[in-house]
Amino acid sequence: MDAFIISIGEELLIGQTVNTNAAWMASQLNKAGIEVKEIRVITDRREEILDTLKAAADRSDLVLITGGLGPTRDDVTRDVLCTFFDSELVMNRQVLDDITYFFKQRGRTITETNRNQAMVPDKARIIRNPYGTAPGFWFNQAGKIFIAMPGVPYEMKEMVSKHVLPALLKKEREQYIIHRTVLTHGIGESYLVDLIGDWENNLPEEVQLAYLPSVGIVKLRLTAKGKDEEKLREIIEKEVEALKRIIPEYIWGFDDDTLEGVAGSLLRERKETVCTAESCTGGAIAGRITSVAGSSAYFKGSIVAYANQVKTNLLGIKPEVLQSHGAVSQETAEHMAQSARKLLHSDYAAGVTGIAGPDGGTEEKPVGTTWIAVSSHNKTMSRKYHFGDNRERNIIRASNAALAMLRELILES
Amino acid sequence: MDAFIISIGEELLIGQTVNTNAAWMASQLNKAGIEVKEIRVITDRREEILDTLKAAADRSDLVLITGGLGPTRDDVTRDVLCTFFDSELVMNRQVLDDITYFFKQRGRTITETNRNQAMVPDKARIIRNPYGTAPGFWFNQAGKIFIAMPGVPYEMKEMVSKHVLPALLKKEREQYIIHRTVLTHGIGESYLVDLIGDWENNLPEEVQLAYLPSVGIVKLRLTAKGKDEEKLREIIEKEVEALKRIIPEYIWGFDDDTLEGVAGSLLRERKETVCTAESCTGGAIAGRITSVAGSSAYFKGSIVAYANQVKTNLLGIKPEVLQSHGAVSQETAEHMAQSARKLLHSDYAAGVTGIAGPDGGTEEKPVGTTWIAVSSHNKTMSRKYHFGDNRERNIIRASNAALAMLRELILES
Repeated sequence: MDAFIISIGEELLIGQTVNTNAAWMASQLNKAGIEVKEIRVITDRREEILDTLKAAADRSDLVLITGGLGPTRDDVTRDVLCTFFDSELVMNRQVLDDITYFFKQRGRTITETNRNQAMVPDKARIIRNPYGTAPGFWFNQAGKIFIAMPGVPYEMKEMVSKHVLPALLKKEREQYIIHRTVLTHGIGESYLVDLIGDWENNLPEEVQLAYLPSVGIVKLRLTAKGKDEEKLREIIEKEVEALKRIIPEYIWGFDDDTLEGVAGSLLRERKETVCTAESCTGGAIAGRITSVAGSSAYFKGSIVAYANQVKTNLLGIKPEVLQSHGAVSQETAEHMAQSARKLLHSDYAAGVTGIAGPDGGTEEKPVGTTWIAVSSHNKTMSRKYHFGDNRERNIIRASNAALAMLRELILES
Repeated sequence: MDAFIISIGEELLIGQTVNTNAAWMASQLNKAGIEVKEIRVITDRREEILDTLKAAADRSDLVLITGGLGPTRDDVTRDVLCTFFDSELVMNRQVLDDITYFFKQRGRTITETNRNQAMVPDKARIIRNPYGTAPGFWFNQAGKIFIAMPGVPYEMKEMVSKHVLPALLKKEREQYIIHRTVLTHGIGESYLVDLIGDWENNLPEEVQLAYLPSVGIVKLRLTAKGKDEEKLREIIEKEVEALKRIIPEYIWGFDDDTLEGVAGSLLRERKETVCTAESCTGGAIAGRITSVAGSSAYFKGSIVAYANQVKTNLLGIKPEVLQSHGAVSQETAEHMAQSARKLLHSDYAAGVTGIAGPDGGTEEKPVGTTWIAVSSHNKTMSRKYHFGDNRERNIIRASNAALAMLRELILES
């Protein structure tokens, strides 16, 4: 079984919205052994949707469609589906109840516009929507499956996770696609190529390798496809183990791991705590640590000392230190980490100070210069980094580096 | 002139990479009055690329292709282009010099693999790549333009900004596409429909309206297309003004504005400062404020008081208050804001405390319950929100609401 994704929406074609839905759906389908052959983004014009539905039906066994199911007038997908499947709109009691409940829960009464959303194609099976008013539609035709869902990401995701995937997984599997991604930090793509070239050249035939560089992190994705899931996993694991022996110092996680998640898991296991003192990252590291559910078990808090006044008043960094060494210096970064660790009664702390840009750089300390320190009760480690001239990427790079250093310090402690 | 985007790459079809390239290119083309008719994401198989090139040539005057130009063996785009345009590979001296310089700058010598990248289709005009080794290719055929570029975002962006767009803009403009997006907060899509339905029904023919709901924010995009740029702008502005009269209290910005940017601009104009005291948002608000370049002019810092101990020790909230009213209460939120404002010597402060989830909810205070306070020297405003049960969205919603309240308070001051 292979799949075709159709994303409907002008906002995608004018570049106002990035198509995260298609990427998410593709990753989910892969987990079910279903390959996505093509993704098409089209406008919400009737003819175009019809043509694309035909093309999709010619090519794939499963067609996922998102967008254009809302209550407003530019939402035409439901009507086009009726045309394509020669179906008629009928009132669905269950959907009407769901919509009514949705509004009631919010202390409001259903509007006429939304009541109309309970009119659904008679040939479709309904996929209920707990987070919104537009239901999803599942059509079976000529041995092929067509599933239409709203374009709102969390509404679509709920439908895919709770209904679509479980139903697809019940069918007999034709193949397995095993992806395993090894996550590295602290080494560039071309240096990695040099280190692991021999290993790459000797990979077994059924294993494919892809390099995926992003900001400060290079992901190595190994993929194997075939009928014997267990064997594929064995082959891939063997190669991952080999890779671990070649570049142990750069690997910090696998697959969907995040640096904040990996550091958090270590802290949780050890029943230890962490806090941050942030200048140039402006709370981004704290934000990432607390994006992890359950982080209250190990995260105490943060002092975001953007102004020097705050570095002095709250973190107790002497004005002389700021004056003589500068706010972006080893002394300041270390003091920030050590001081936050004590103030917030934590086992570990990270202190980050740098010049994110675009302004504030000097010849001696150009934009991108960043000092990062991590501190425990008996050790403080600090490093100087030269990132680039892009503010957004500098904040991400600094956050990644701080979290990687934190992981390193925890593992050493 | 309209355009067709072809994105080539397995990483897009397995969902490991989100197609930000296509969105960015679409937004740039729109600025040049060029509509994107379709975006197709395909694998790097020869036949598929050829078929898609044919389909694109049938539909559009301009075809932008990204991906598959790298030096590794899965990069086949260059060869397929040779087949499609009946072209042959020839060594290009300029490209070879560029690649040699690229390596030299990094203290390395050119490899054989990379030298091969100087072999380019003889029918293509070359687009030089200052950030990487793969040049771009520009083909003219039968009155249509085909442009192939690397998939690395910053390499592609440089080529589009410096070469592709300037060349396209030299051609006579056939049409202008004017987008204007009105940004609202604090009202759901279906209530907006009720409020602005009459206005929407009476929009001039050339103006199209789209509703774009996201987490806590609904964007209203007005689009007009035609030959007379000035007239189109006038028509759109008139409608935006009308909208401002109907829903003034919900509108906070336009187009690419962000809540943090809008609040920041106000503070900068007034030479005033802000800080935050965050519990459930864990630094996310500070992170958003400091994502804006130049925010050091008005942002002092933040106390992220995730643990109650930090609320007590650093923010001076009495344990009795936390005990009797709870950490998620009006009293705590207000105290957080007021205390941070004083400690960080700021004109304004936002205090946020809530239950982000998935755990920590009670019957009385379910997951999603959030108290937000904003405070100035003479006023403290606080509101209780009930968001949902999704941690990620709760953090975004709480951040949006806090920034919107902050804007409100600044405007009232």
